[in-house]
Amino acid sequence: MRDFSQGVEHLSINTATVRKQLTLPAIIEACARRGIRAIDPWRDQVAAAGIAAVARQLKDAGIVLSGYCRGGFFPAADAAGLAAALEDNRRAVDEAKTLGTSCLVLVAGSLPGALAGKPASKDIGLARSQVLDGIAATLDYARGAGVPLAIEPLHPMQAADRACISTLEQALDICDALDPGRTGALGVALDVYHTWWDPKLAAQIARAGRERLLAYHVCDWLVPTRDLLNDRGMMGDGIIELRKIRALVEAAGYAGPVEVEIFSDSWWARPADDVLDTCVARYRTVV
Amino acid sequence: MRDFSQGVEHLSINTATVRKQLTLPAIIEACARRGIRAIDPWRDQVAAAGIAAVARQLKDAGIVLSGYCRGGFFPAADAAGLAAALEDNRRAVDEAKTLGTSCLVLVAGSLPGALAGKPASKDIGLARSQVLDGIAATLDYARGAGVPLAIEPLHPMQAADRACISTLEQALDICDALDPGRTGALGVALDVYHTWWDPKLAAQIARAGRERLLAYHVCDWLVPTRDLLNDRGMMGDGIIELRKIRALVEAAGYAGPVEVEIFSDSWWARPADDVLDTCVARYRTVV
Repeated sequence: MRDFSQGVEHLSINTATVRKQLTLPAIIEACARRGIRAIDPWRDQVAAAGIAAVARQLKDAGIVLSGYCRGGFFPAADAAGLAAALEDNRRAVDEAKTLGTSCLVLVAGSLPGALAGKPASKDIGLARSQVLDGIAATLDYARGAGVPLAIEPLHPMQAADRACISTLEQALDICDALDPGRTGALGVALDVYHTWWDPKLAAQIARAGRERLLAYHVCDWLVPTRDLLNDRGMMGDGIIELRKIRALVEAAGYAGPVEVEIFSDSWWARPADDVLDTCVARYRTVV
Repeated sequence: MRDFSQGVEHLSINTATVRKQLTLPAIIEACARRGIRAIDPWRDQVAAAGIAAVARQLKDAGIVLSGYCRGGFFPAADAAGLAAALEDNRRAVDEAKTLGTSCLVLVAGSLPGALAGKPASKDIGLARSQVLDGIAATLDYARGAGVPLAIEPLHPMQAADRACISTLEQALDICDALDPGRTGALGVALDVYHTWWDPKLAAQIARAGRERLLAYHVCDWLVPTRDLLNDRGMMGDGIIELRKIRALVEAAGYAGPVEVEIFSDSWWARPADDVLDTCVARYRTVV
């Protein structure tokens, strides 16, 4: 297992972690000041700053992308919606190519309208079928662009509105169906927050192997958790066995960055420097 | 599939549904007035009313138990705690026998202390091992008493504090390990709230079969869901495919009651008669 205690060589910051405090250029500066060599930015942040300027700033700072957030949200209530989702995913692939990234993260989506509180359907089977078709179509395009796609299974508490892909096993089944050759073009983004509870986690991490493990995200599960979306914990403040899971991931061959992604009203209310310093400290001691 | 539109023959009320409004004797009366023939009471409600009086009232009203809530919570931080949990489960079995029930519902428990917000351990593997041992010991005792045990997998969002058994597959693996003969002494309580999201739900319901399906609980998943514990929806108000899942359960051989169990600050704030009348109406139209 890699020794993280001496520096930040393998640390990446998902820029949602301080999105309420800083613009993307300011986040990149703050990471560069700390010697952090990777980030995972969100499309809205990139759009706000201008993609060419972001690409230039990253290059100047020597910072690479451990992922780009995000494609996905394939299901829709009608054909026009499905087509619009595919078009939006092609744009995400184009942006990912422009920026250069180890993967485009896919959050599958689920029941159309559910995210807005107005589900137009209860048919999760249909949503899953639309997700499979959407990933297949996007994969063709992404292969051409040289952008690997990473399916991120989300916690089952987000299965109605954000992702009908809820387990690592389910994500890997899709990978096997669409990329049986394990070419590296399709894999998973494994986030401990979404998957720590899974009794099959160890077995499925081993199944994934290095060809499928395209990203590894960390934060922590707080006890109690007060919100289904924005109450993630800083590493070490919750009950996830971070060292144990990282050992599994590395034993399966993963050698990439460890990305901190914390959606938290509590951490968003603190100064960005405090948040990033804490991320660095916890990365070195408990991740 | 059974026709529920004409009456309440197969309806059961989990008494937590109106626990904030009524005592257990008043709940039994309210159910009897509606012709409801089954309930699933909680141990604290039974203790408050006196078990002998409850048993008598149930007999007089012709109401049976579709379950008894609950045993379980096996993991503990030390040997004394483990022994106390086993002793408490034996008492639950004794009470279940006194009342007569189709099963004692087991909520496994998970990290010791987590329910009180003070987890003494992060080792979910150890918790699972303690759960397996606890169920094995309780099963021996329950067989002697003639009380079937029903393991209830809880939603993964409750995996840290309430149950380290999170999927139907995991629960059935335990059943197969401890009761390979499918004797009817050990099975599962399947609650749609905890399991609707599971991509393997249909396959695992078929695997369970009638010998393992000891109870079937319904409510609904609201979009959005505002609380991890007490924001369950009334059947029909959310996105769970109730008819589809009941069809699967009945196709697997389940012919028992359909139990309504709603933990909801919103429904607890309404008059009990409104809640129960709504349960009956929704049972007849959308379950």
